[in-house]
Amino acid sequence: MTTTEAGAAAPSEHATHGYHKQKDEHLKRLRRIEGQIRGLQRMVDEDVYCIDILTQVSASTKALQSFALQLLEEHLRHCVADAAVKGGDEIDAKVEEATQAIARMLRT
Amino acid sequence: MTTTEAGAAAPSEHATHGYHKQKDEHLKRLRRIEGQIRGLQRMVDEDVYCIDILTQVSASTKALQSFALQLLEEHLRHCVADAAVKGGDEIDAKVEEATQAIARMLRT
Amino acid sequence: MTTTEAGAAAPSEHATHGYHKQKDEHLKRLRRIEGQIRGLQRMVDEDVYCIDILTQVSASTKALQSFALQLLEEHLRHCVADAAVKGGDEIDAKVEEATQAIARMLRT
Amino acid sequence: MTTTEAGAAAPSEHATHGYHKQKDEHLKRLRRIEGQIRGLQRMVDEDVYCIDILTQVSASTKALQSFALQLLEEHLRHCVADAAVKGGDEIDAKVEEATQAIARMLRT
Repeated sequence: MTTTEAGAAAPSEHATHGYHKQKDEHLKRLRRIEGQIRGLQRMVDEDVYCIDILTQVSASTKALQSFALQLLEEHLRHCVADAAVKGGDEIDAKVEEATQAIARMLRT
Repeated sequence: MTTTEAGAAAPSEHATHGYHKQKDEHLKRLRRIEGQIRGLQRMVDEDVYCIDILTQVSASTKALQSFALQLLEEHLRHCVADAAVKGGDEIDAKVEEATQAIARMLRT
Repeated sequence: MTTTEAGAAAPSEHATHGYHKQKDEHLKRLRRIEGQIRGLQRMVDEDVYCIDILTQVSASTKALQSFALQLLEEHLRHCVADAAVKGGDEIDAKVEEATQAIARMLRT
Repeated sequence: MTTTEAGAAAPSEHATHGYHKQKDEHLKRLRRIEGQIRGLQRMVDEDVYCIDILTQVSASTKALQSFALQLLEEHLRHCVADAAVKGGDEIDAKVEEATQAIARMLRT
């Protein structure tokens, strides 16, 4: 995303989602989490003490939650806010959808 | 809650928050949770089996989370959407604030 | 739970559950949580800002989780450890039961 | 890991931790989670809708929690139960350590 913004005259169909601008940052985060999961495999393979593995699992879960929160923030700032500006029923659907996503995050 | 705002003679249109309309429902939910917490005190007092108490604690926590989710949904639908419509910087502040509230919910 | 204990010939008054000794502390904690829930009702009734209510909900949930953790620790230290010492199949049942309780805590 | 313990010529029966027997199952689970994380990278890269990514994050978090619970169950069944049988102070340390690990799981 360089020159045009949402609400500009001709946004391409893929200029869309909220997280677009942070794409590189997101991919970097996810690759780091992938590395943590591979680290867990090594730990299991090398018979590391259970509690130390659990600590590393908690770190990975926290990293995933933190990624989800950032994604959600961008979603609220862009998709949900856009729906509010547009008016009509869409805001209700968007808010309900976001709330259900948050409920799923809470229940894991 | 029927005609007037809580303790306010002439409420402005913004004297109320997103959850205003569901006030009675919220109070009912919270009284039910209060009853669950008193139930927990009875269980501890009567030396009920630990695991049964833990099950009841989980039910109370779930009820609190469910209350929080409903409050959050109304907040997004009203306060956050209003800020988006108004334009300006407020939407950023509102979204950041909501995301931090969600982060606190996740960390408990 | 009145006079006799499961499988015990002459149970002392403290043959009971793991949390027995901390009973007063537990009741104090739960009364404090009950107060927090009543505080939430006041906040809703007085139209306090949604985000401030959510912060208080998170504090109550945290307090409940903290109570659950203490109960669980005492359960592991007493009931589960006793089953291990006794030998036989009971330890498997106790550990499975405790794990399911932890799973319920995680999913709320 | 095929025939011998990690770097040990003649492992004693206690050179292994509680999760040892389920090692292959654990590694399979973790490889599946690693695949999910790579799937998330693809989704971000292909500009998939935020909410669909959040759903997949929740699935990965759930899978990690489920792995942690199995590890914890084996830890309680073996390491904690062994400490109880052995007697002495070790059971207190083991239970405290396990409770702290559960607390970390809850806070993520």
